[in-house]
Amino acid sequence: MLKNYEIRKYQMPQEEIQALVKEKRQELVRQQMMIKEHKIPVFVLVEGWGSAGKGTLIGNLIKELDPRFFSVITMKAPGEEESRKPFLWRYMETIPEAGKFVFLNSGWLTETVDDVMNDRIDEEALEKRFKQLRIFERQLKDNGYLVIKLFLQIPPAEQKKRLEKLKGAKDTKWRVAERDLLQAKKRKKYEKVYDRILESTNTGYVPWNIVDAVDKKQALLQVLHLLTNQINQAVENVRILPEILHKDYPLLKMPLLAQVPLDQEMTKEEYTIRLKELQKKLKKLHNKIYRKRIPIIIAYEGWDAAGKGGNIKRLTGALDPRGFEVHPIASPEPHEKARHHLWRFYHRLPKDGHIAIFDRTWYGRVMVERLEGFCSENDWKRAYNEINEFEQELTDWGAIVIKFWVHIDKDTQLARFTERQNTPEKQWKITEEDWRNREKWDAYEEAVNEMLARTSTENAPWFIIQSNNKYYARIQAIETVIAAIEERVGSV
Amino acid sequence: MLKNYEIRKYQMPQEEIQALVKEKRQELVRQQMMIKEHKIPVFVLVEGWGSAGKGTLIGNLIKELDPRFFSVITMKAPGEEESRKPFLWRYMETIPEAGKFVFLNSGWLTETVDDVMNDRIDEEALEKRFKQLRIFERQLKDNGYLVIKLFLQIPPAEQKKRLEKLKGAKDTKWRVAERDLLQAKKRKKYEKVYDRILESTNTGYVPWNIVDAVDKKQALLQVLHLLTNQINQAVENVRILPEILHKDYPLLKMPLLAQVPLDQEMTKEEYTIRLKELQKKLKKLHNKIYRKRIPIIIAYEGWDAAGKGGNIKRLTGALDPRGFEVHPIASPEPHEKARHHLWRFYHRLPKDGHIAIFDRTWYGRVMVERLEGFCSENDWKRAYNEINEFEQELTDWGAIVIKFWVHIDKDTQLARFTERQNTPEKQWKITEEDWRNREKWDAYEEAVNEMLARTSTENAPWFIIQSNNKYYARIQAIETVIAAIEERVGSV
Repeated sequence: MLKNYEIRKYQMPQEEIQALVKEKRQELVRQQMMIKEHKIPVFVLVEGWGSAGKGTLIGNLIKELDPRFFSVITMKAPGEEESRKPFLWRYMETIPEAGKFVFLNSGWLTETVDDVMNDRIDEEALEKRFKQLRIFERQLKDNGYLVIKLFLQIPPAEQKKRLEKLKGAKDTKWRVAERDLLQAKKRKKYEKVYDRILESTNTGYVPWNIVDAVDKKQALLQVLHLLTNQINQAVENVRILPEILHKDYPLLKMPLLAQVPLDQEMTKEEYTIRLKELQKKLKKLHNKIYRKRIPIIIAYEGWDAAGKGGNIKRLTGALDPRGFEVHPIASPEPHEKARHHLWRFYHRLPKDGHIAIFDRTWYGRVMVERLEGFCSENDWKRAYNEINEFEQELTDWGAIVIKFWVHIDKDTQLARFTERQNTPEKQWKITEEDWRNREKWDAYEEAVNEMLARTSTENAPWFIIQSNNKYYARIQAIETVIAAIEERVGSV
Repeated sequence: MLKNYEIRKYQMPQEEIQALVKEKRQELVRQQMMIKEHKIPVFVLVEGWGSAGKGTLIGNLIKELDPRFFSVITMKAPGEEESRKPFLWRYMETIPEAGKFVFLNSGWLTETVDDVMNDRIDEEALEKRFKQLRIFERQLKDNGYLVIKLFLQIPPAEQKKRLEKLKGAKDTKWRVAERDLLQAKKRKKYEKVYDRILESTNTGYVPWNIVDAVDKKQALLQVLHLLTNQINQAVENVRILPEILHKDYPLLKMPLLAQVPLDQEMTKEEYTIRLKELQKKLKKLHNKIYRKRIPIIIAYEGWDAAGKGGNIKRLTGALDPRGFEVHPIASPEPHEKARHHLWRFYHRLPKDGHIAIFDRTWYGRVMVERLEGFCSENDWKRAYNEINEFEQELTDWGAIVIKFWVHIDKDTQLARFTERQNTPEKQWKITEEDWRNREKWDAYEEAVNEMLARTSTENAPWFIIQSNNKYYARIQAIETVIAAIEERVGSV
């Protein structure tokens, strides 16, 4: 790719280039309002050789932009905390919100090249990463993002010359990174690695753009052309619906909710004894996954009043409080709504060795958001595959992913609602909305059935917790978690 | 303090203690709803000797709590990014939101002790830190927080015994930190340091509670008593207004807005030449503060249509985009509203060597929030001092703080509003709200005059930018920034 890219040279005098730059910059300024109006987030990744002029280019691009509508983020090698999250975590953190620009100065290309050059990644993991990157970029695009990837290319001799010059002057010496010198020295090897990664992440939906960066003015004009064209196109295409993908994930056969028996019995005595045993066991396992640095993600969904809260409490009762977090999920706040629907869940992922429990989850997209019309039909239909991909990424990272549907029947819900209504200290738990949702039971049941059928993958399966008897349900959940951990680390 | 604390031993049989623990835990469960209802955030800091049982205690406290209403945060030594922010930054990040508990496992006490023991802090900085901590805790309290500080005390012999035991067993060995061993070895010296810091941060509003942690059941009961009592008290006192402090900050004399002349002239030609010169200079200075790791915070306030946006753009036009960020501040989102009013600004502080520009700021409290009744009278009256303290902390940290009031007269505003209304590509800049605010010009002017008079401190002064002529205003702002930087680092 770096060899046979198309060089677009503007054959015209300097003044004309200058005038064109000015014109294009003005266009970009006008486009700010267009992307704001159409709620398009624009994510520009600027990669390239050391000293190719990434910083200068970004500086020139933003010159006339309103500082309220963009930010520039310079990525460094991941810190200790970051390296304990999935690879894409910190990139997901930086994605722009609707109507804004983010310029990323170096990113997943640089990081991956460095990983390869320093032998920190093996062949299998590398292929997985390519796949994840393609999914990441496609999901962004499908969720309305305009993603533009640039690679600033300069020949070896030019790079050497620039580095020498920088090193030579007192006030620029500090800017020459170890990494850049190494790059220049092992240029051939780097070229091969760059090329492979560029090619493996060059897709129809988010292609790489190789920019000839020897002449800075030429490069700037090239990029301005590219940016303004792509933004115009994105605005035009804003109504084109993305394709709804159904990728082949190995799905587990799930029963329909109506077929799930709910007549299990368990006495308080039986429950108390069993709970104590299981909590003791889980405690030891928690210790073990902490030391082995295995992340665990537990997702709770279920009917209102199914007993999710009490169930979670019994689970966490066994856990060292330094090693878990419970995330209650409500409707998204404005800054969350302005981003990819999975962003707020990425943001809350645990670091390795820790447990994150989600009280309601990313499945809101295909339940409440679907049924209440909070997102478009295309959005929720696309979400099944997006979620499967998300969970695949989590388990590829090494996480254990467990998903619970806490199930009760309609009569049990009514009984519990009524009890809540009549018990002063429980009244806070019941709202008008609960009653309204109850009226839509059948529609929800259909949506849940579809969700279970389409997202119960081998790597991240759904478990239906039978919760007419809460004792039974709690034991069932904790046993499921124990079994999943033991499958990974053996029993204690 | 560690010597003569009051030991509260419960002289009763184990079963009775057990029964009391159960009772108090149930009370704590009921109190969850009380703190939710009264929107009280509860911040529990658990400190103590290594192996005193901090983790176990927290585990026992939360046992019956609803996991949606609390989180446990374990603080470690600050990472690279964190160490480039003000000391309190990462603690401010962890404060609970209204109606929730945060249990902090080790915190500012441990960090400060370690700083002293490792000679990372000198006497002057230490005294400053004590002052900051007292301010931090008082501000939290005044903003409705219940802050409870615990220190788990065990005698030297007990600590040694516990560490030996932990070290001896295969599955607990890994839990013994280097730090704990050192503590046991140099116990006397540590005791002295702990004692000094405990005493220096022991205040009437947020006192330390020394807990005898030799017997874990006794300790648990003590803490449960303490917590439940304090929560009851906090609920009772919820209507008691905090005192409005007027601390002596060296204030600069500011003119009334009505006295500020606005008849400056500057031609476009003059402006263009001057701007180029100044931007060149500022660019060099930016480089210098980046290398010297000096953080800069620039706050923009001003009348609607005064030209803040354009002014900021000319300033940032000179800056390396990798070294600054512009934060447009709108009304707070729910998760921001649920915390200390300065929280969202802390969160956006730059790291050292970087520039943060705030387009509208923490002064909203004493302007729009005051005039629109978005906070109580006590809240905005307290805010002058809280803001002075906040800015003092920033400059103590080493930041350059510059605050601009971008000023125009009423006629100029009308002319600009009208122009915006009549120019299609500017219409997005003008809203109904702008017209409504304009009607309250006099009330705002009074509030701004009071704000300028009470918060223009020597360390963080206000500058009134005369913006009837936008060219003049931009040059004035950029000159002010240059002067402030040059005062610190010399000219370039």
